[in-house]
Amino acid sequence: MTLPRKDLFHLPEGVIYLDGNSLGPLPRAAVTRTAAALADEWGEMLIRGWNDADWIGLPARVGDRIGALVGAPAGSVVMGDTLSIKVYQALAAALEMRSDRRVVISDSGNFPTDLYMAQGLLDTLGRGHELRVVAPEDVAGALDDTVAAVMLTEVDYRTGSRHDMGAITRAAHDAGAVMIWDLAHSAGALPVDLAGCGCEFAVGCTYKYLNGGPGAPAFIYVRPDLAGTVRPALQGWMGHDAPFAFDLDYRPAPGIERMRVGTPPVLQLSTLEAALTAWDGVTMEEVRAASVALMETFIEAVERRCPGLELASPRDPSARGSQVSFRFAEGYAAMRALIDRGVIGDFRAPDIMRFGFTPLYLDEADVLAAVDVIAEVLETEAWRDSAYRTRARVT
Amino acid sequence: MTLPRKDLFHLPEGVIYLDGNSLGPLPRAAVTRTAAALADEWGEMLIRGWNDADWIGLPARVGDRIGALVGAPAGSVVMGDTLSIKVYQALAAALEMRSDRRVVISDSGNFPTDLYMAQGLLDTLGRGHELRVVAPEDVAGALDDTVAAVMLTEVDYRTGSRHDMGAITRAAHDAGAVMIWDLAHSAGALPVDLAGCGCEFAVGCTYKYLNGGPGAPAFIYVRPDLAGTVRPALQGWMGHDAPFAFDLDYRPAPGIERMRVGTPPVLQLSTLEAALTAWDGVTMEEVRAASVALMETFIEAVERRCPGLELASPRDPSARGSQVSFRFAEGYAAMRALIDRGVIGDFRAPDIMRFGFTPLYLDEADVLAAVDVIAEVLETEAWRDSAYRTRARVT
Repeated sequence: MTLPRKDLFHLPEGVIYLDGNSLGPLPRAAVTRTAAALADEWGEMLIRGWNDADWIGLPARVGDRIGALVGAPAGSVVMGDTLSIKVYQALAAALEMRSDRRVVISDSGNFPTDLYMAQGLLDTLGRGHELRVVAPEDVAGALDDTVAAVMLTEVDYRTGSRHDMGAITRAAHDAGAVMIWDLAHSAGALPVDLAGCGCEFAVGCTYKYLNGGPGAPAFIYVRPDLAGTVRPALQGWMGHDAPFAFDLDYRPAPGIERMRVGTPPVLQLSTLEAALTAWDGVTMEEVRAASVALMETFIEAVERRCPGLELASPRDPSARGSQVSFRFAEGYAAMRALIDRGVIGDFRAPDIMRFGFTPLYLDEADVLAAVDVIAEVLETEAWRDSAYRTRARVT
Repeated sequence: MTLPRKDLFHLPEGVIYLDGNSLGPLPRAAVTRTAAALADEWGEMLIRGWNDADWIGLPARVGDRIGALVGAPAGSVVMGDTLSIKVYQALAAALEMRSDRRVVISDSGNFPTDLYMAQGLLDTLGRGHELRVVAPEDVAGALDDTVAAVMLTEVDYRTGSRHDMGAITRAAHDAGAVMIWDLAHSAGALPVDLAGCGCEFAVGCTYKYLNGGPGAPAFIYVRPDLAGTVRPALQGWMGHDAPFAFDLDYRPAPGIERMRVGTPPVLQLSTLEAALTAWDGVTMEEVRAASVALMETFIEAVERRCPGLELASPRDPSARGSQVSFRFAEGYAAMRALIDRGVIGDFRAPDIMRFGFTPLYLDEADVLAAVDVIAEVLETEAWRDSAYRTRARVT
């Protein structure tokens, strides 16, 4: 397998896309598959599509495909909802497993919605739980026998800094806590060994490195030995053992399917299923090796040519995800100037310029061409243009 | 405006579709819009689509469109997630508003997922709440000063029987309870006056009468005077006052947008937005009048020609939604036989054959032709064919 495989994607003319860590580009297979899901399935089968096109099986089928990319066995991952909802489900289940404890540990590098959802759950429970948010490097030291659950995102969305999933999971388990990993910036970015790490729960989204499209559904993994016993807080009919018996009482499905909630987003799952074919025949190790090579090229060139930018990501590639971040006080305007010139990354407050490296559709020439543009924007101070200073609704 | 407007929909050859109450057919506008959302928005704009195609505004924009169909003022409805999730949000907020009470009233005609989600929430709260499920006709009598919330679906998914939203809401309020309406079988089926009825919350799905496609997102309405004060239990980043400030602490958006949770399903929202153009220039009163006429024709013809079928829906059209149900002991096999002959309705256990009446794309000739097929299946006992007796995964 040779990378990149740009022919599998639609990439706009004149754009170098370094934001696949936020929203992956359009896979060509997704265009034809989505059109078929509308015309041939919805249009022709109508309600019969639930059986005839196996819409009902999509959440498990796509879940298995993603499971294979994150080291999860078949039957341990299911799709649906959003990452926020999946965080809530995982944490609610974790807190029931450790109902004698009241502390949840997370870190300040976690994506805010994980923290918001956790706090919302704790407030709803009203049982005196505390969400303790520590610095990323202080997680291990924060573990003690009051901790019910540890909830972390492997790769920090701002700096790209990466936790050691195995070591932290062991430490959490040594403290008697349940471990929940958010793989938003991991799935499709680097090898993940869910089964090997032993965590109880993992969640993730699919619109970043997995290229599922804007608002693509999320996934949840439950360790197979637990999937038949966890109580879903969000007990929707699609997680029922027999949804079409229409019983008045809930009885959870035997395994991972109990983490399904409502009617699945069939169209977006179809788009995503097609997008995932881009991973056929490529290993995560190959992708990771290519990503590291691109990042090293990028860091070397940016540091040499753009002295105003300060590396915010770990210098050691093994401590980093698949993104490189630089600090720059005028980062927002500078990123707008870059985007205007066809180099698309993004900005995270207060001063982070993020660049994602996605070897399925990026090569070294792209990276070097992007650095040319970054250097020009910095040298000419193009970011001073007032047009770049107005904040858009979404940054 | 003349109904039907069949040209707006793709309807398969040889099919009479009486299941729009379960999954509406494919609007032609949805095909072109979805293709454009992929090619022109996702494909060309990439991450810029959040601003440039206003993806971020879709949940409110589409919510307003649906609000207009259910008597809700602009800015009081927002889209996202599934109906199950929206039920959970509404009930969690309702129980906080009446934290001194412990009883939730629903009825046995409510859709099971509403009951499951409610029970899951009550179990999660662990504060001794009780979900009391009474017969539909006993709701008013079940109200007393222990009731925190009343949670009902206006139109019974099996029989099509319809609650009086205004009267029950008044009774709930008289008892000091919060009222939550599920409009799954109402939105796009009949006139709804959310503002007039005074209920605190309403939720609904969009893949039935609103033709949004399989797994289309749900909606939630919060009464405008409450939207700025309810605490969202599911406090995701898209409901934050400033999602892109990436604060560690949650601060809810000022109004209805606080009921947003995670990243919205942009592609399915785009499909839905296009589907809703089918309602341009038609009033719900016109649709309702046409629907009643179709149902009366259907009931008269079926009762005359198919003595084996027993009407399960109210005979008075004003007490009925936009579906007609008949009981038949062999209903499952009979419905399979009908579908095989191009008349698509559906089956709900144990013995309900459901037929939905959707005047946007059905006319009297369709209805009479469908009755011909139903009569033939009953007369020839075609349902005895063993091929029709194996249960599919989805019924």
